[in-house]
Amino acid sequence: MSKLVIVGTVAFDAIETPFGKTDKILGGAATFIGLAASQFHVDSAAVSVVGGDFPKKYLDLLEDKNIDISGIEIVKDGKTFFWSGLYHNDMNSRDTLATELNVLADFQPVVPENYKDAKVVMLGNLHPLTQLSVLEQMHKKPELVVLDTMNFWMDNALDDLHKVMKKIDVITINDEEARQLTGEYSLVVAARKIHDMGPQYVVIKKGEHGALLFHDDNVFYAPALPLEEVFDPTGAGDTFAGGFAGYLAKSDDLSFENMKKAVIYGSTLASFCVEKFGTERMVSLKSDEVLKRLQQFKALTQFEIELT
Amino acid sequence: MSKLVIVGTVAFDAIETPFGKTDKILGGAATFIGLAASQFHVDSAAVSVVGGDFPKKYLDLLEDKNIDISGIEIVKDGKTFFWSGLYHNDMNSRDTLATELNVLADFQPVVPENYKDAKVVMLGNLHPLTQLSVLEQMHKKPELVVLDTMNFWMDNALDDLHKVMKKIDVITINDEEARQLTGEYSLVVAARKIHDMGPQYVVIKKGEHGALLFHDDNVFYAPALPLEEVFDPTGAGDTFAGGFAGYLAKSDDLSFENMKKAVIYGSTLASFCVEKFGTERMVSLKSDEVLKRLQQFKALTQFEIELT
Repeated sequence: MSKLVIVGTVAFDAIETPFGKTDKILGGAATFIGLAASQFHVDSAAVSVVGGDFPKKYLDLLEDKNIDISGIEIVKDGKTFFWSGLYHNDMNSRDTLATELNVLADFQPVVPENYKDAKVVMLGNLHPLTQLSVLEQMHKKPELVVLDTMNFWMDNALDDLHKVMKKIDVITINDEEARQLTGEYSLVVAARKIHDMGPQYVVIKKGEHGALLFHDDNVFYAPALPLEEVFDPTGAGDTFAGGFAGYLAKSDDLSFENMKKAVIYGSTLASFCVEKFGTERMVSLKSDEVLKRLQQFKALTQFEIELT
Repeated sequence: MSKLVIVGTVAFDAIETPFGKTDKILGGAATFIGLAASQFHVDSAAVSVVGGDFPKKYLDLLEDKNIDISGIEIVKDGKTFFWSGLYHNDMNSRDTLATELNVLADFQPVVPENYKDAKVVMLGNLHPLTQLSVLEQMHKKPELVVLDTMNFWMDNALDDLHKVMKKIDVITINDEEARQLTGEYSLVVAARKIHDMGPQYVVIKKGEHGALLFHDDNVFYAPALPLEEVFDPTGAGDTFAGGFAGYLAKSDDLSFENMKKAVIYGSTLASFCVEKFGTERMVSLKSDEVLKRLQQFKALTQFEIELT
């Protein structure tokens, strides 16, 4: 069991889907990552920032999940980062209705002293230089650094993204972003080019089509569980990343075989995340429910063919 | 080992992709299905029609693959069905440049007498009433009828399609077509509605994202092998269907577990089909190559998680 440092937003989200809409509810990359990782009972710390308007009950919720919150700065006279989005009928596309950076605009992450020796660092989607500054605070290079990013930083901070990509072990990125970053349509070729940019392991998230893990000539494909309905996709990618990093922090095994399991855990947890609005499903999630769904994942993908 | 009747086009294709273009080459659904099924050394017969312009070498090629061609009518003064298409850069979309029905316009399939007792029938993409007429010629209901179709028949012959769907066991259909046929976005819900239209088993093909097999509450997901490049997608869906039906005809086992294997075989063979223009790769394909790729499929999808 290794310590896990999680960097990312802790935020208010307001979400509208064909199934309904929410007021400002708990959201943010670090929140979803932390909730997912908490399934593995790892010793994790969230590094983030919120405003004075952020309810204590949300911080309590994170602490109840055994997430150290001493690295979550509270800017008393500031407002918490706010995102609002509207999902279309197919749930695969959305419009951003509002993005209010608020306290995130001046966020300088500070890793708590007793987590500077963490072996695993999960860099949630943020400005690449903010991600980099976290790595620079660690006592030595962590054994595993996982980075999540998005097309926004490719458009607006590509050089900085390349800088941080040289310092990481695993990148999680979606298919369109992998294509944008490399100019390659084939994900096999794109993964190889991304590998050449730094990370040894490349995870390409394909939403309802699952996720691919690339390492050297090895490739693993974890499907997404086919769902009757996706209620709210918000946080699914972060939940995937949190499950992935959380499982690896727990198991202390960075082999390809074990990374495959981490991808399966990430996919499994993400399949719960989308069942309710925001963090609701992840907060209530019990370990026996996870176990049952892992069995569904096995049934979904495992087959016996005698290779003779 | 069961007899297999294959119904579909035997055709000329002219294909243009970003990698090059062909003159008129061998194509057609029954051709691709037959070549895929021939990997299992089943006793198969193709039921189709060609014109007097169809080269004997192509018929010889099918016979060399142990496909009975007595059910391929040759209309001496007619011209063979011709299709021409242009694939776009992403290989996921194409323009049809020409469709000349020719002898296909008046095609009345005739099942050879000694195949009217076949246990497995693969109905390749054709007018639903043409597909239905084949079933009506069989001595008794075959043990397994697999039907492939496309959006064209949903637009132009939906009532007839529903008629034949009531007589079949498995439908293979792509994701967009499943959504069109049911008006449902969720493939889980769509599969259930298609099941209610007739077929016990629903296979939804998702191209580069693999294929899903649904039966009652069971679902199986076979990914597509991630490829460096897709050279020519023509025939991939038919090759999938031919591998699926061919494996089931060979193994005489219609359990869900065995259908899973059939889907894997279909995906494996389709991954070869796209490597070269038209039928080229399928014609040269050796069983040890198939075995090696099945091993890649296992590595791609199999994982060990202790569920305790």
